[in-house]
Amino acid sequence: MFPDNIFVNIINTLGIIAFALSGAVAGMKKEADVLGVVILSLIAASCGGIIRDLMLGDLPPELLRSNFILSLAVFSGLLTFFCYHRVDRLHHHIDILDALGLGLYAVVGADKAMAFGITPTWCVGLGLVTAVGGGIARDVMLAQVPTILKSEIYATPALLGALILVAGQSWRPEYGDVFLALGAVVCSSLRLLAIHFHWHIRR
Amino acid sequence: MFPDNIFVNIINTLGIIAFALSGAVAGMKKEADVLGVVILSLIAASCGGIIRDLMLGDLPPELLRSNFILSLAVFSGLLTFFCYHRVDRLHHHIDILDALGLGLYAVVGADKAMAFGITPTWCVGLGLVTAVGGGIARDVMLAQVPTILKSEIYATPALLGALILVAGQSWRPEYGDVFLALGAVVCSSLRLLAIHFHWHIRR
Amino acid sequence: MFPDNIFVNIINTLGIIAFALSGAVAGMKKEADVLGVVILSLIAASCGGIIRDLMLGDLPPELLRSNFILSLAVFSGLLTFFCYHRVDRLHHHIDILDALGLGLYAVVGADKAMAFGITPTWCVGLGLVTAVGGGIARDVMLAQVPTILKSEIYATPALLGALILVAGQSWRPEYGDVFLALGAVVCSSLRLLAIHFHWHIRR
Repeated sequence: MFPDNIFVNIINTLGIIAFALSGAVAGMKKEADVLGVVILSLIAASCGGIIRDLMLGDLPPELLRSNFILSLAVFSGLLTFFCYHRVDRLHHHIDILDALGLGLYAVVGADKAMAFGITPTWCVGLGLVTAVGGGIARDVMLAQVPTILKSEIYATPALLGALILVAGQSWRPEYGDVFLALGAVVCSSLRLLAIHFHWHIRR
Repeated sequence: MFPDNIFVNIINTLGIIAFALSGAVAGMKKEADVLGVVILSLIAASCGGIIRDLMLGDLPPELLRSNFILSLAVFSGLLTFFCYHRVDRLHHHIDILDALGLGLYAVVGADKAMAFGITPTWCVGLGLVTAVGGGIARDVMLAQVPTILKSEIYATPALLGALILVAGQSWRPEYGDVFLALGAVVCSSLRLLAIHFHWHIRR
Repeated sequence: MFPDNIFVNIINTLGIIAFALSGAVAGMKKEADVLGVVILSLIAASCGGIIRDLMLGDLPPELLRSNFILSLAVFSGLLTFFCYHRVDRLHHHIDILDALGLGLYAVVGADKAMAFGITPTWCVGLGLVTAVGGGIARDVMLAQVPTILKSEIYATPALLGALILVAGQSWRPEYGDVFLALGAVVCSSLRLLAIHFHWHIRR
């Protein structure tokens, strides 16, 4: 786990809010009611970590043992419902926070998976699941093909971040924190570059 | 858990049948075959409780240890497949049974969650999941946006019922049964009033 | 569990590849990018077994403890992405391999479930889940009504295969392997006949 420093906590909080807002905005577009918007906000923010913990057998999932994600998601959902136009206008800024969350989730998810006796390759996979699971669950709930399966550079940076963490941890476990930071920075930077330059994967 | 009295058992049985029929009817509308209709009937009746138990780590889920829900769901599925028009014509009556099941599932789900070391707020959440999870799974399986996310007063009563149970249990654990009954009655009544007066949440 | 003989291993490998290819082809049709195709390939090949293990509480799921399915799925996904037209042209051959995998998954899934204290009827159900869960997850991810819920003879053979195994095992546990083989052969043959003669269930 990351050292519990304030910088990581800020990124984590911003990332959760960005994920939650993405769920809430998607719910507004499909005309969900206020409780529906809050539910979608919570799903987008929490499903990645919940699916990871279900797969690892760490039950009840970590995030059900605190109200941290739950309160951020309820707040984000209500904010979006009652100030939709303002939130929607901020979507470029939200994308940037989302990129920060993506990197953090990918490395933290992969790092946690390494303690549960699954293969390193699957640890990378669970890092990816932690990072993109919420977005997939949000889209599946709304009967849409998940955007991240399509030509957008979103899952690739998360995969790369998780890969750096797992490869690094396996090679030099004593520098675990360095690879955590490196994986997160590479993932978030790549995602930010993809947003800034409108990169798409060509088919 | 509720005292095992005959009145609660009747409501429980009727509620399961109502949930199962909703799944079966949705399957018929999407042209599922006989086994598909039975599968959807089972999903609608069981997924709320299964998701709750997965999240709590109470595995295998409670309802896989008996054939009660399974037989009711198979029966409801076959009945719907072979007597579709009669079942569909009863949909107002089914809605009423469904409201009874909703209240019971919400409080029983929240009550069970309280023994598993998660926060009270998440217990309310799992009560909601128990009550509406089957309906969400049914709609997601059929590639539809879950109706309960939209402007229908369905999830709100379930949330309220679970909230009454959790707040009551935390405040006065010795009156647990009273709050179970109160939460279920408030949830079911509110849902029945919403059906009767065609209440919708305005956006 | 099946005796670890080479014949069973070959069927197992071919079945996994067939399932994975079905996921990859479905992803290509919905314009997923290369990572999306690989993810769908993995989901189609693994979700049946993962859902079964989640329900049984055997966590982390069996197949996360080896890279076998993961590597076959990544290989199948990349193959499909880069040689789509060739793979798509082979779909009749893939259907045949898929039928072999279906039979094997159904009996192996039901057999495993019998050791976990759930009712025999639910064991049959989990055999079915193991066999068809990957296909359902693939379709749900792509916002399509699962084809197996519709008028195609796919889930029925799997149900029958699992039923033969569970009934046989309960009646004469000492002939477990015989019923494993019998269930798998009946399921796969029925599915192959359904493909060959274009059988459909009439509504």
